[in-house]
Amino acid sequence: MQPNVCEENLTMLTDFYELTMGNGYFLNGFSKKQTYFDIFFRKVPDNGGFAIAGGLSDIIRYVRNLHFSGADIAYLRGKGIFDEKFLAYLKDFKFEGDIYAVPEGTPVFPYEPIVTVKAPAVQAQLMETFLLLCINHQSSIATKANRIVRAAKGRPVMEFGSRRAQGIAAAVIGARAAYIGGCVATACTLTDELYGVPAAGTMAHSWVQMFDDEYSAFKFYTETYPHNAILLVDTYNTLKSGIPNAIRVFKEYLASGRTMANYGIRMDSGDLAYLTKKARVMLDEAGLKDAKIVVSNSLDEYLINDLLQQGAVIDSFGVGERMITSSSSPVFGAVYKLSAVEGEDRVIVPKIKISENTDKITNPGFKKVYRFYDKKTGKAIADEICLHNEIVNEALPHTIFDPKATWKQRTLKGFRVRELLVPIFRHGELVYKEPSLPEIQQYCKAQTETLWEEVKRFENPHVYNVDLSRKLWDLKKKMLDTEGCKL
Amino acid sequence: MQPNVCEENLTMLTDFYELTMGNGYFLNGFSKKQTYFDIFFRKVPDNGGFAIAGGLSDIIRYVRNLHFSGADIAYLRGKGIFDEKFLAYLKDFKFEGDIYAVPEGTPVFPYEPIVTVKAPAVQAQLMETFLLLCINHQSSIATKANRIVRAAKGRPVMEFGSRRAQGIAAAVIGARAAYIGGCVATACTLTDELYGVPAAGTMAHSWVQMFDDEYSAFKFYTETYPHNAILLVDTYNTLKSGIPNAIRVFKEYLASGRTMANYGIRMDSGDLAYLTKKARVMLDEAGLKDAKIVVSNSLDEYLINDLLQQGAVIDSFGVGERMITSSSSPVFGAVYKLSAVEGEDRVIVPKIKISENTDKITNPGFKKVYRFYDKKTGKAIADEICLHNEIVNEALPHTIFDPKATWKQRTLKGFRVRELLVPIFRHGELVYKEPSLPEIQQYCKAQTETLWEEVKRFENPHVYNVDLSRKLWDLKKKMLDTEGCKL
Repeated sequence: MQPNVCEENLTMLTDFYELTMGNGYFLNGFSKKQTYFDIFFRKVPDNGGFAIAGGLSDIIRYVRNLHFSGADIAYLRGKGIFDEKFLAYLKDFKFEGDIYAVPEGTPVFPYEPIVTVKAPAVQAQLMETFLLLCINHQSSIATKANRIVRAAKGRPVMEFGSRRAQGIAAAVIGARAAYIGGCVATACTLTDELYGVPAAGTMAHSWVQMFDDEYSAFKFYTETYPHNAILLVDTYNTLKSGIPNAIRVFKEYLASGRTMANYGIRMDSGDLAYLTKKARVMLDEAGLKDAKIVVSNSLDEYLINDLLQQGAVIDSFGVGERMITSSSSPVFGAVYKLSAVEGEDRVIVPKIKISENTDKITNPGFKKVYRFYDKKTGKAIADEICLHNEIVNEALPHTIFDPKATWKQRTLKGFRVRELLVPIFRHGELVYKEPSLPEIQQYCKAQTETLWEEVKRFENPHVYNVDLSRKLWDLKKKMLDTEGCKL
Repeated sequence: MQPNVCEENLTMLTDFYELTMGNGYFLNGFSKKQTYFDIFFRKVPDNGGFAIAGGLSDIIRYVRNLHFSGADIAYLRGKGIFDEKFLAYLKDFKFEGDIYAVPEGTPVFPYEPIVTVKAPAVQAQLMETFLLLCINHQSSIATKANRIVRAAKGRPVMEFGSRRAQGIAAAVIGARAAYIGGCVATACTLTDELYGVPAAGTMAHSWVQMFDDEYSAFKFYTETYPHNAILLVDTYNTLKSGIPNAIRVFKEYLASGRTMANYGIRMDSGDLAYLTKKARVMLDEAGLKDAKIVVSNSLDEYLINDLLQQGAVIDSFGVGERMITSSSSPVFGAVYKLSAVEGEDRVIVPKIKISENTDKITNPGFKKVYRFYDKKTGKAIADEICLHNEIVNEALPHTIFDPKATWKQRTLKGFRVRELLVPIFRHGELVYKEPSLPEIQQYCKAQTETLWEEVKRFENPHVYNVDLSRKLWDLKKKMLDTEGCKL
């Protein structure tokens, strides 16, 4: 057996209990019972005001490829706990359900469903682990990248984190998620080859050390790559050696009458506020006003913000470990919760998970989410979670209220609405046409711009309203009263 | 093009600059120049006293599989910056170098080489990204798991993190690394199927909600899985509903004359110190003294330590997001640094990377690492980094000294030594026989036990000595004096 994690065996990337529960559902006659599960999260990473949804693309490929190989069945049989009829069911396994999801790149908020699965119990349960894995990881990185890109205030941010990513998929798919969040390029060659995220890079210290001296290293690099001659100037001494050698090489190259499309320096250590200001002066005094200054070294939105506030002179950023691991908030805690089942009569029976921690009580029923935009400003006003058969009429005033403080009411007029969850699969068939990756990036940017600055603030952002419709609120209250009495 | 990250295309999981540098080395006549690179890290995660090395197994498979497909070459050609001769070289690419590494599961310390690559410049440079990725991710998780397992003081720890892992490889390979660190099982079915890490699990809240009532859910589960009936008791109310229903089911099952191999309850919310004490009393009073108590819910070494100090009564732990992402210290910062090159005469020319930050100055030359053990106690005393041709004689006293404070000297007697770096590849051929995964776990446990308790402490651990040999120290000092003068 040659271990390899590959599309072929991702069906088995599931918590073992999904399979033991599946076997149990099957044996208890639940194999055709329709169930509804929601994915939602409770807390925005880094105490931010919103997250960016990611992961849908991989979910689509996973669902289309769901199948158990003969080896998988043999492995499961070897456990001695699965019924042969269940194994036969798995052998012919095919996803037959519906999936609704918010498109990748959508700004999303706590407690609202970002994916809803309607499928027979065994099928919906099996997918829990993988769906959460995709949503959690890719939303985490897209959210972090979006924060870092916003901190850079228009300066390009390149994703440089492969070597510090948590595994190969985190490197490759993480770079794709970072692009969705707004990065312009990645160091990861494979992400370019597979997804078309532009690959970019400069040089390592080893390049400089490989030559007899820094000047020779810079000269040969510039001769070889005049279209993109970004020289790493901190191998020996940035101000005394690196920048002077870079300036000498650039001036000699230009003096020969040739041109460089993109050229400049990169600094990966030291006090970047001080050094970039010094470097800018040195480059300008040498007549190299179009030489770029690129910086890297454990950057994130906080450090970038500080550097820019201190007047650092920077043209673009390379961001590695702190983005590709979302290191200051590395867990995106989306959960997968049962919200309803269907009886034999096809009637939807809402389900609720009670908790002494009120934040952990789930929203029951088959639901959808409306986002309200102000017609004049185009800004997002609030989201409303409602039951799947409710319709909001844009022509009528609409009253929303805070589910945690129901006396906080607001009547909206002059709005347009958009349903956030769109159909992805119907009866097991893909019904969604995925946008291209640049389209997703553009959509993310445009949707982020519909949020008020107060919601986008890094520290103590304004809490965007995610309200419940009156019908959903009444249902939830009734169920809490009934279930609470049972305890 | 169907995007898929798979063994077949991992050669392209490399920073783009490795390829542009490679092309440059090739054009500058460095394609046969032998180079030496070391992988080492500078800081133990969580301010711990040591890390556990991981990642070698994936590195071996990667190196054996290194090749550029026709599609890869076409992609690179499309960039318009690679020389055709270089592309022809890549087409026939074969790793021809040597790799030395510490075996997986070895406790390792800052600044000592844990991997050394000797290979022609283009080849060694290409591998930087992937080697670091494997070492960083898997050492991170093995280290975190080792900490959590030690905090559990002999109670089994199960890895439950797939849904919160950073991508598919982080879930699958991360669970393997967690097993190396000491976990007994994983929730990830694929990790069991591919690597043989025992899969384990209990049930989700959805199982309980799927039935008409909690009692029925518990009863059906126990009937189906009497070998492992761990019931999740916190869906509605742990003390008033969950535990009483579990007790009723267990007593009825046992009253029928049948037996349960392993049974008990799991709690995933609430105050686990308070609830486990209450639960133990309730189970014992019901005559269910062998019922197990399993807990989960955002656990890590700190919380486990606190729970046990407060007298929580726990038989085993399920640990998810905080282990699989090493969330309190999610970046393992190993680096890949050039330490030497060979001239045409095959003489090794050491290389050093200077920095104003003295901790960032590298150790030059082709090196090896000795670990000194006290012959009587078997405890590890210190590591010494020396040049590759130095030999330590166990029969003679050996003086070691602190490279940061050379007056701190100690003369060792009655020791045995072990070389930490072992040959993995020679001239491109695999010369290492990988131990089985249980052997690696056992080795990790045994080697961790050679460390003094003071080094294993979670808070402010004793700093284990990693010294330089006199010869290496003299070389480094001479190079610093020479290079420093140049600036």
